[in-house]
Amino acid sequence: MASSAPKALARVLRQAKKPSIPRSRHVQCFRPLREAARPFSTTQSRREDTSEPGHHVKYTTDMYPTLKRDSRYSEITPEHVEFFKSSIGAEAVIDGVTQDSADDIEGFNSDWMRKYRGHTKLVLKPKTKEEVSQILKYCNDNKLAVVPQGGNSGLVGGSVPVFDEIVVSLSRMNQIRSFDEISGVLVVDGGVILEVADNFLAEHNHLFPLDLGAKGSCQIGGNVATNAGGLRLLRYGSLHGNVLGLEAVLPDGTIVDDLGKLRKNNTGYDLKQLFIGGEGTIGIITGVSVQCPQRSKAVNVAYFGLPSFDHVQKAFRDAKIQLGEILSAFELMDGQSQGFVHRVTGNKNPLEDEHPFYVLIETSGSNADHDHEKLEQFLEHVMGEEIVSDGVLAQDETQVKSLWRWREGITEAIGHFGGTYKYDVSIPIQDLYRLVEETRERLTSKGLVGDDDSYPALGVVGYGHMGDSNLHLNVPVRRYTKEVEEAIEPWVYEWIQKRSGSISAEHGLGIAKKKYIGYSRSENMIKLMKQIKNLYDPQGIMNPYKYI
Amino acid sequence: MASSAPKALARVLRQAKKPSIPRSRHVQCFRPLREAARPFSTTQSRREDTSEPGHHVKYTTDMYPTLKRDSRYSEITPEHVEFFKSSIGAEAVIDGVTQDSADDIEGFNSDWMRKYRGHTKLVLKPKTKEEVSQILKYCNDNKLAVVPQGGNSGLVGGSVPVFDEIVVSLSRMNQIRSFDEISGVLVVDGGVILEVADNFLAEHNHLFPLDLGAKGSCQIGGNVATNAGGLRLLRYGSLHGNVLGLEAVLPDGTIVDDLGKLRKNNTGYDLKQLFIGGEGTIGIITGVSVQCPQRSKAVNVAYFGLPSFDHVQKAFRDAKIQLGEILSAFELMDGQSQGFVHRVTGNKNPLEDEHPFYVLIETSGSNADHDHEKLEQFLEHVMGEEIVSDGVLAQDETQVKSLWRWREGITEAIGHFGGTYKYDVSIPIQDLYRLVEETRERLTSKGLVGDDDSYPALGVVGYGHMGDSNLHLNVPVRRYTKEVEEAIEPWVYEWIQKRSGSISAEHGLGIAKKKYIGYSRSENMIKLMKQIKNLYDPQGIMNPYKYI
Repeated sequence: MASSAPKALARVLRQAKKPSIPRSRHVQCFRPLREAARPFSTTQSRREDTSEPGHHVKYTTDMYPTLKRDSRYSEITPEHVEFFKSSIGAEAVIDGVTQDSADDIEGFNSDWMRKYRGHTKLVLKPKTKEEVSQILKYCNDNKLAVVPQGGNSGLVGGSVPVFDEIVVSLSRMNQIRSFDEISGVLVVDGGVILEVADNFLAEHNHLFPLDLGAKGSCQIGGNVATNAGGLRLLRYGSLHGNVLGLEAVLPDGTIVDDLGKLRKNNTGYDLKQLFIGGEGTIGIITGVSVQCPQRSKAVNVAYFGLPSFDHVQKAFRDAKIQLGEILSAFELMDGQSQGFVHRVTGNKNPLEDEHPFYVLIETSGSNADHDHEKLEQFLEHVMGEEIVSDGVLAQDETQVKSLWRWREGITEAIGHFGGTYKYDVSIPIQDLYRLVEETRERLTSKGLVGDDDSYPALGVVGYGHMGDSNLHLNVPVRRYTKEVEEAIEPWVYEWIQKRSGSISAEHGLGIAKKKYIGYSRSENMIKLMKQIKNLYDPQGIMNPYKYI
Repeated sequence: MASSAPKALARVLRQAKKPSIPRSRHVQCFRPLREAARPFSTTQSRREDTSEPGHHVKYTTDMYPTLKRDSRYSEITPEHVEFFKSSIGAEAVIDGVTQDSADDIEGFNSDWMRKYRGHTKLVLKPKTKEEVSQILKYCNDNKLAVVPQGGNSGLVGGSVPVFDEIVVSLSRMNQIRSFDEISGVLVVDGGVILEVADNFLAEHNHLFPLDLGAKGSCQIGGNVATNAGGLRLLRYGSLHGNVLGLEAVLPDGTIVDDLGKLRKNNTGYDLKQLFIGGEGTIGIITGVSVQCPQRSKAVNVAYFGLPSFDHVQKAFRDAKIQLGEILSAFELMDGQSQGFVHRVTGNKNPLEDEHPFYVLIETSGSNADHDHEKLEQFLEHVMGEEIVSDGVLAQDETQVKSLWRWREGITEAIGHFGGTYKYDVSIPIQDLYRLVEETRERLTSKGLVGDDDSYPALGVVGYGHMGDSNLHLNVPVRRYTKEVEEAIEPWVYEWIQKRSGSISAEHGLGIAKKKYIGYSRSENMIKLMKQIKNLYDPQGIMNPYKYI
């Protein structure tokens, strides 16, 4: 049944000249993806992953041997620990200083990619902004370095310690504070998990204006601190536009109370913007107020195969024109990326034949009939003009989710064999995929990519948010090696700089990109950024060794 | 013919149960508005307004007698003027220091509302960012105060001098630098007039994501500096989300080169955000890069009469649900506001009877048939449920423009009789109109509002961007008097503070709101804002006596 579906769809599309919507279109029979293939559905499952036997995570200090602990920071003493226990409660402190708590602390010391690992011996879990304020003031007065940590789902090592920085985890600040159905304004603690907030909003016919693969574990405070972009920025815009207010604590303990719920408030500098994308280097976000749109009644998802990147560009141009205001995602996946998902999950690709490129299109609108009609006209057009080679359209919510897993499952699938070198970049759309091709040629010519275990890399994969000119260049490896890293870096950054792109579109700088910022920012800009860092964090206690 | 239109429309709506779209609906026969009633269509016409005989503009220093010239600023000397003439060319300098140029300078000294007037004797019109840099560096070194000026269409006196500050006009930096049809990214000089940019974009099927009444004279650099909100923020979001890059000059002459064209670029603090809404107090914006959406193929406008503000709220709630992604404006106008437009323009209201409230709804979408159908279902619903009392739907572009004039013409109409006390505020939507009612009661009880010339005020008017909870409370007056001002202020700000609103939703602080910022911002926030001001402008030369 599955094998005849694409042609059947194409036939239906060719017939569908009339405005009425055929309800009984041939249904593609998807096999569900195995549960394990879902991106981290809870924090717990991710934490368990990191302690799997056989997955030894190197210390960041071994990966970056030139990094030295900054001697201006104090060593943590039992007296410091005692202060924290007395001020926020012993149950809120994971103490590896005066006792052996290595197992409890390990999950906070290393990231889910098993790429970065710190040496902290102290984790604090405050429950209120006042407790965060007490902690930071004490750390500032005593020159103790701090790493704020949300869901720890970042990709650049920004949320784990390098040396013995104290981890301040927001996980217990997890209350939804308020929601107004008329204005659509949601106010949450910084530690609320994105999916929890979105499920809550779903009950009120609203939507969180950000969605990403790690939604089951990432926290909204962390999303804001890293200016997460994700899958639907194309439709709902960036957090710089959607975040209406913030509550944050500065290193000196000052509580920045800017948690407004107003869509318009032109009374002075919009300081909250500095915290959006500030990666925890000037303060800790404890509360967020966000403008949430109405949840769309109708959501449709289509999945295509295309013969070339030129065809992908044509499909994107026409989708913008024909789907207009209902287009909510336009995701690019290359053939290799879909091959990895197939290989790891065992699931059969929704399309019969293999294609060099795949695209997932999502529409979200208020009228199902209208959306079907627009999408059908678009499908007819792209099939008729041979812009796409083949395609399927999800017929129900289960199929919508199945198709999304071919996109959202990529990260996990390609990381399955060891690790992944990940580059999250913005490039003018015309050149977007050339970077993948040239990286592939480069690694192949250096003998670094191949099918058997003697090659460090398994392939060179490209996918991403085409609608935002945002490419994820990924190199899945059996093991992290200097040869692969040196073959890619800084070559990849130079390539991007030549095209005025960004070396970090949505994943931020963290420790991974710190030294490469100059490829995307001028000296003047970096100087001005350092001014801001010094203004808010003159002791430099916040998230050191990272960012700028 | 006009008089029977609303009923005919209602009839048609009641019949229109079928999904097909009736093309020949009864056409409302609008008389065109007199040309003079259009809001400032060119800079020139506005400039002429300000010098009309009988409209004497008081000096700001007379209105605010407690303001004293800050003695840290140097007086302008002929040597200073000589420097400017030699560095940017004599033709770019309007020199009232060494010669009599009062007439040429007057338009730069006073605002279009005839409410603020400065004493400057020097206007500079640089043509490049390097010239702006030379000017600011010289002013900074010589302690000369500066006022950046765009289209001078602000409402809080932010763009005119108070004492003898040098005006730096961006009017000659008016080039469209580039536009990319695939990404929709437009790059312009700061002095490009909004309407010029939007007309250019129209030729390329795109739209500037900001629209406001003063579009014929306001400049994009000024729009960004004041974080202008306008008519379509509801649909396209704020400039904090839409501005992708900025080029600005700091007081010390540093050129901030952050003119990226990328939708995503997470490489460090998003410093450009400080200039968005910074009102020219930390630098001058010389270039802007902005994300522009596809221009909608179908634009529909409907205009309703409603019996109460409760009904307006119901209509808004249902418009959000039923019109969803195509809703591009939901504008509130009270009966008094429409009465003033009628009285000043002589035009007959589109609806037969008078109503306490009016609403203008605009939809913008990619498929005219679908949009018509959605709008019709909505109209049927609000007429059937008696949420609206009466309504008309524009049948062509001329009628679209005519209906918009009933909204856009308010500012000019109510200012016709002398002046206007204008309050641009954000209030939770439930309480939005109560402020107008209570202000009306207050001024009436004090005997300040009435129909003959013995009363200073002509009425109390409310209108605004309902979709953004943004009310314009306006008190048209025959003359500005202390009694009226003291009856309103600070009472109005206290009223807003109690409801956690904003005392300036979109018009900014300028000189008008400087001393009231405490009603919308905490002491901590104000302290942090002053830190930023001191960081970028330690000499305080930029736009003094205003903002914070």
